[in-house]
Amino acid sequence: MNVKEEALRLHKEKRGKIEIVGTMPVRNGSDLAIAYTPGVAEPCLEIAKNKDNAYKYTMKGKTVAVITNGTAVLGLGNIGPEAGLPVVEGKALLLKKFAGVDAMPISVNSIDPDDIVNTVRNIAPGFGGIHLEDIKAPECFYIEDKLKEELDIPVYHDDQHGTAIAVLAGLYNALKIVGKRIDDIKVLINGAGASGIATAKLLSSAGVKKIILCDINGALVEGDTELNEPQQEIAKVTNREFEKGTLQDVIKDKDVFIGVSAGNVLTKEMVESMNKDSIIFALANPTPEILPDIAKAGGARVIATGRSDFPNQINNVLVFPGMFKGVLKVRAKEICDEMKVAAAKGIAALVKDSQLNEDYIVPSVFDEGVCEAVAEAVTKVAKELGLVRLYLV
Amino acid sequence: MNVKEEALRLHKEKRGKIEIVGTMPVRNGSDLAIAYTPGVAEPCLEIAKNKDNAYKYTMKGKTVAVITNGTAVLGLGNIGPEAGLPVVEGKALLLKKFAGVDAMPISVNSIDPDDIVNTVRNIAPGFGGIHLEDIKAPECFYIEDKLKEELDIPVYHDDQHGTAIAVLAGLYNALKIVGKRIDDIKVLINGAGASGIATAKLLSSAGVKKIILCDINGALVEGDTELNEPQQEIAKVTNREFEKGTLQDVIKDKDVFIGVSAGNVLTKEMVESMNKDSIIFALANPTPEILPDIAKAGGARVIATGRSDFPNQINNVLVFPGMFKGVLKVRAKEICDEMKVAAAKGIAALVKDSQLNEDYIVPSVFDEGVCEAVAEAVTKVAKELGLVRLYLV
Repeated sequence: MNVKEEALRLHKEKRGKIEIVGTMPVRNGSDLAIAYTPGVAEPCLEIAKNKDNAYKYTMKGKTVAVITNGTAVLGLGNIGPEAGLPVVEGKALLLKKFAGVDAMPISVNSIDPDDIVNTVRNIAPGFGGIHLEDIKAPECFYIEDKLKEELDIPVYHDDQHGTAIAVLAGLYNALKIVGKRIDDIKVLINGAGASGIATAKLLSSAGVKKIILCDINGALVEGDTELNEPQQEIAKVTNREFEKGTLQDVIKDKDVFIGVSAGNVLTKEMVESMNKDSIIFALANPTPEILPDIAKAGGARVIATGRSDFPNQINNVLVFPGMFKGVLKVRAKEICDEMKVAAAKGIAALVKDSQLNEDYIVPSVFDEGVCEAVAEAVTKVAKELGLVRLYLV
Repeated sequence: MNVKEEALRLHKEKRGKIEIVGTMPVRNGSDLAIAYTPGVAEPCLEIAKNKDNAYKYTMKGKTVAVITNGTAVLGLGNIGPEAGLPVVEGKALLLKKFAGVDAMPISVNSIDPDDIVNTVRNIAPGFGGIHLEDIKAPECFYIEDKLKEELDIPVYHDDQHGTAIAVLAGLYNALKIVGKRIDDIKVLINGAGASGIATAKLLSSAGVKKIILCDINGALVEGDTELNEPQQEIAKVTNREFEKGTLQDVIKDKDVFIGVSAGNVLTKEMVESMNKDSIIFALANPTPEILPDIAKAGGARVIATGRSDFPNQINNVLVFPGMFKGVLKVRAKEICDEMKVAAAKGIAALVKDSQLNEDYIVPSVFDEGVCEAVAEAVTKVAKELGLVRLYLV
């Protein structure tokens, strides 16, 4: 099968990847009187009394908006809102398939962060959650932060948190294999965009003490005014030994490499310069930072990629369906760091100690337990922290 | 069956009226490689080359947004964006049922016309058309006009044009029964909001020469500065004899009464003061302006209402499914007056002369020919006027 040709053929034949179907019968005047006028006035009036009744009588409680503006689509860059549509439709397809969550793909024709925030805030009443997708850094940070401030439903930028949570899940199990403690390791993250910065933040929340971010200009160091604002912020809490230099310089003596940037940037020699039993997550797609066999030859003990044709696929699909299934189930008001860490632990725990090995640190995305494990983990934390609207359920 | 109770029960059980389902298989890694990464990059790239390719490879070409802000929901007034959701979900249900059109219900949390325009314009890339719903007058006129200016897809405010087109369809056939010519009749429209003003405009486009609009303060007369702007505009081209007074005063010697406002405002005596063989469209819901038997007793020859339990139900459902089916079929850029008149003629023509009588001037909303007749009529005109993107089909 030629994937490119088949992808075009099937997208054209199906006219995209999702459709919208009715759930109420409309066979005759009686049906119409229930679903439409005059019956429809009743749920309208109940919601007018208390807007949270929208969770009861409309699709809000089971539906998220998947929102892009097409500025950072896959590895293709800023290709515009129309060209971003296949990806958000894809996320909607996967949300339904893996989690039973209804998702509306929406592409926003704007590159102005405040305008995007305003647009998403305006259309939020019909949704139980907001999934942001393929919005370029650094704008994505501001957009997510503002929306979290202004909305009382969960807002989740998948490029940030999906990657961060999947990485943390894999890391928990990889550390078991190499016998290192999370608070002892030194981590190098290559890529200081959405997923790199989010991963640094989440690993830090999970107890990692020594993290260095590196991008095309080398290690991020506090005080470098060439960095954008989110990079300057993260540089204040990472790289506390102020290491400088290129990837080749700063990779030395690290325990973990996490690549979330460009392919083919990590060499065997660089892996050799890392600490013993190194862990390599080479997540660039479709070409990883280093091929697994080369990393292994360089001494790496555990290697993961973003690809389905190598062992240990670290993919956001492990995370976002269960995350939204969970938050919708308890009508959560937000997604906090504790929920993200719990999701990672939930995924990691699906790999039993008896099964765990170098080539099996995360479950398959088709493992039916994944979505439920994530959903359960996040709902538990959300309830514990009082971030839910359970009174409505 | 208690309609109110059953409506609440079923809306709650079904969690609203629509769901979103996938159309591509996701059974294994190969499926994922087509629908998602890496295959999804191909349609993205094709659309990046030419954004109109979104019609080919995404759901855009078969999907409309049904948009409200909850400011004029049914007869309930401004009850807020959440409370408006059941109605836009209902429109989505009916668009799929009657026309096979996918529709996303979206409620906008704003009452500022420019903000609403900006929001809808921003989310337009994923849609082949915009269906506006339950937005209060006079803002609805500005919002629709601005969106028509700024977008290259059809924008259609159902409360205006759905009513206007359905009324015109019924009027064509009613006039056949009473043997009057459309350019001879005098029409009184009671209600000078969205549907009243739109009906006046469309009847005028269709050849009606003498129209008076009346609202709670009486007949609209040019120069009355108490009127809002759209009312002042319509007053410049209607009521050219400058009739003044209440409904009771100005209904005299009219051939047609069209009520699109409040119930129980038309009396038998008022109907008696109309010209012989009068036509009464008493469309207020759920209580019409006058009950059919009273209108008949007053001398009316043809009587229609908005209700399904009387003959001659004049309902927007006759129009909007076929309208969107048609414009999506040819990827139309807009909906113009000629298309609206053609839609009305298409509906009217479904009632054969041999069937036509006082109690049968419009087909049932469940007549399977209605949607196709409207779609054919509007596509024909759209093609004739060059308002289509047929090169893509």
